[in-house]
Amino acid sequence: MASRIPKLLVDIHTHVYLPRYASVLRSREVAPRILSRTTASGQTEERLLILDNEPSGGRPVGPQYWDRDEKLRFMDKHGIDISIVSMANPWLDFLPYKSALDLSTNLNADLQTYCSTSPSLTSVEPSLNRLYALGLIPLVNDTPADTLVPFIRNLSANHPHIRGIILGTRGRGKGLDEPELEEMWGALEETGLVVFLHPHYGVGGGENVWGERENGHVLPLALGFPFETTAAVTRLILSGLLDRHPNMRILLAHAGAALPLLSSRLASCITHDPLVAHRLQHDARYYLGKLYYDAVAYGAAELGFVSAVIGRAEREGTTREEEGDAERGSTRIMFGTDHPFFPPIGEEGGDQKWQSVLDNLDAVQGVAKWSGEAKDGVKGGNALRLFGLI
Amino acid sequence: MASRIPKLLVDIHTHVYLPRYASVLRSREVAPRILSRTTASGQTEERLLILDNEPSGGRPVGPQYWDRDEKLRFMDKHGIDISIVSMANPWLDFLPYKSALDLSTNLNADLQTYCSTSPSLTSVEPSLNRLYALGLIPLVNDTPADTLVPFIRNLSANHPHIRGIILGTRGRGKGLDEPELEEMWGALEETGLVVFLHPHYGVGGGENVWGERENGHVLPLALGFPFETTAAVTRLILSGLLDRHPNMRILLAHAGAALPLLSSRLASCITHDPLVAHRLQHDARYYLGKLYYDAVAYGAAELGFVSAVIGRAEREGTTREEEGDAERGSTRIMFGTDHPFFPPIGEEGGDQKWQSVLDNLDAVQGVAKWSGEAKDGVKGGNALRLFGLI
Repeated sequence: MASRIPKLLVDIHTHVYLPRYASVLRSREVAPRILSRTTASGQTEERLLILDNEPSGGRPVGPQYWDRDEKLRFMDKHGIDISIVSMANPWLDFLPYKSALDLSTNLNADLQTYCSTSPSLTSVEPSLNRLYALGLIPLVNDTPADTLVPFIRNLSANHPHIRGIILGTRGRGKGLDEPELEEMWGALEETGLVVFLHPHYGVGGGENVWGERENGHVLPLALGFPFETTAAVTRLILSGLLDRHPNMRILLAHAGAALPLLSSRLASCITHDPLVAHRLQHDARYYLGKLYYDAVAYGAAELGFVSAVIGRAEREGTTREEEGDAERGSTRIMFGTDHPFFPPIGEEGGDQKWQSVLDNLDAVQGVAKWSGEAKDGVKGGNALRLFGLI
Repeated sequence: MASRIPKLLVDIHTHVYLPRYASVLRSREVAPRILSRTTASGQTEERLLILDNEPSGGRPVGPQYWDRDEKLRFMDKHGIDISIVSMANPWLDFLPYKSALDLSTNLNADLQTYCSTSPSLTSVEPSLNRLYALGLIPLVNDTPADTLVPFIRNLSANHPHIRGIILGTRGRGKGLDEPELEEMWGALEETGLVVFLHPHYGVGGGENVWGERENGHVLPLALGFPFETTAAVTRLILSGLLDRHPNMRILLAHAGAALPLLSSRLASCITHDPLVAHRLQHDARYYLGKLYYDAVAYGAAELGFVSAVIGRAEREGTTREEEGDAERGSTRIMFGTDHPFFPPIGEEGGDQKWQSVLDNLDAVQGVAKWSGEAKDGVKGGNALRLFGLI
């Protein structure tokens, strides 16, 4: 019996700054903001500053951030059938609750329209559109926690093209393991929305850990981002969230960041700390098998390893490797591009495919211990299942 | 032709707080310090506080930190033939230069005596002692950089049992990539001393990244420590150190921390940042093949992956996996215990072997893609070669 899952390329990590959001950023005088400046050659350019003291004066920003046709052209260029777009960081973090509520409500409606009016996948699955989305919830400093449950239920019930949310790590300023957020998590589990956990602030910059040398965006992006995701998800694990909500669907940006490589150390630190040793129902490594991961790791060894760690989860507490772990673990990993970030230097507008995309595709293809079926799953089938598209 | 390398178990990550150092810590009123307190049951206990605001009121500390017989008993219990001991963090970081110079000079002499008067490995290699050491250099805030070169040369020339140094990440307060430290690195390369890069401060605690829940030492130890090592070595790579000093022997604590899993992301971030893209002679992943790693990762999948990343280094810039990478890469990985940290809860004094040691041994044994020869190398042969013991 042949598999009924169509072989599609699905991009689950791809960002938009919708026009409504870009307008908000243009109106601001402090980061996050979009500013206009005149280049040395006399041209006007817009630049995106997402953090205070952003290196290199921020990034050039243009239609690839908000124009749907640009997104579709990027998809066509790289053979991507479906994209599940998400707003990019810092989302609504900088707003007071009332503004965050208004803006998230409107942006979710925008996202629904953006996707539902997108082309259908005519040649393969005409019932599918080419665009789906992860929505926003108004989770900011002064959010009354009890307002989140109805918001989430409404988001799920009335936005058929929104299949999850994207979530930063700060919550209401106390992180995602704040006890008051318990009902929010309950609603997320109950609705089955995928929670895409994504960094913004980075960890390290506030402690002068990057030093005085000029290294552009490299350290905050390559290290600070994954450190942030790693800390956030580890805190969730330590809070017992996945014991209380075993069906939660948390998707980790950047292939789980550093967590997979630190997970046995984490398990050992828990086992050896009297305060925590008996808190969780399982060995820490078990919970890595309850999470989902994008495949944005740029290397095959990395992906193969992450899949082995996921596959190991059920044999909790075992330090040895086992044949087959990686193949099993691959079903929780999904291709992504991080578009429109990581454009080729100096050739954004050209006909060239993006090296960052090719690297991530090549990585999937190059995992020695994955079967062809596993690779097809990572490229599309796993996402189609997780996001309920088949 | 049979291999001449004896099959020994060598522990390269094992700490001491020599009596002279413990006395300094006892004399202090602020961290790092050792304080005495009376327990609920009326007994006096000493506790070690290495950081301000240490969770759980620090750790219990006792003879296992300073008594050589305790170290040897621990080695015997676990079948460890040779230990290469190093002073534990925070070393001399809190001292002014003159005190750091005096104390490092005296502690290096202490270490030399500690090792040279230790038992010889009678049954196997009578020419070897059971203890060797990593020394200290007086690298603190106000160290005149030009004093380090003669210090390092003297350390190497006159302390035959000291085969390297242990180095924290802060240097003179500006990190290890401070341009003024160039001659220090030159002297370390020239003498062939192994540089064991080890965390102390952690990254994350200063930014309230660990949150408000009580998680004991878990987050700073499981995440903050590896984040710190990862940032420090990445900065060294970005500074071009390993292009200028290709024979530098840098040994990374905790199996390279998060660097191996983030190395392809790092390479991509470098390639995509105009400021850094053309600075280094090689793809970032190349430099992972110039480093050395302890095997303190508590899991076989982790060790196998780290070895694959090391093995990949020579195929720089390739995203795919290749058969044989892991076997090649294993030659740069070496067993360690992190003794006297990670004792079994409540049974330090018992006859039981330590779970943390068993886990690390089991991990070495359990790497599916390592041959028996590779495992023997990780357990001892690689260290014997790197530290010049055969």
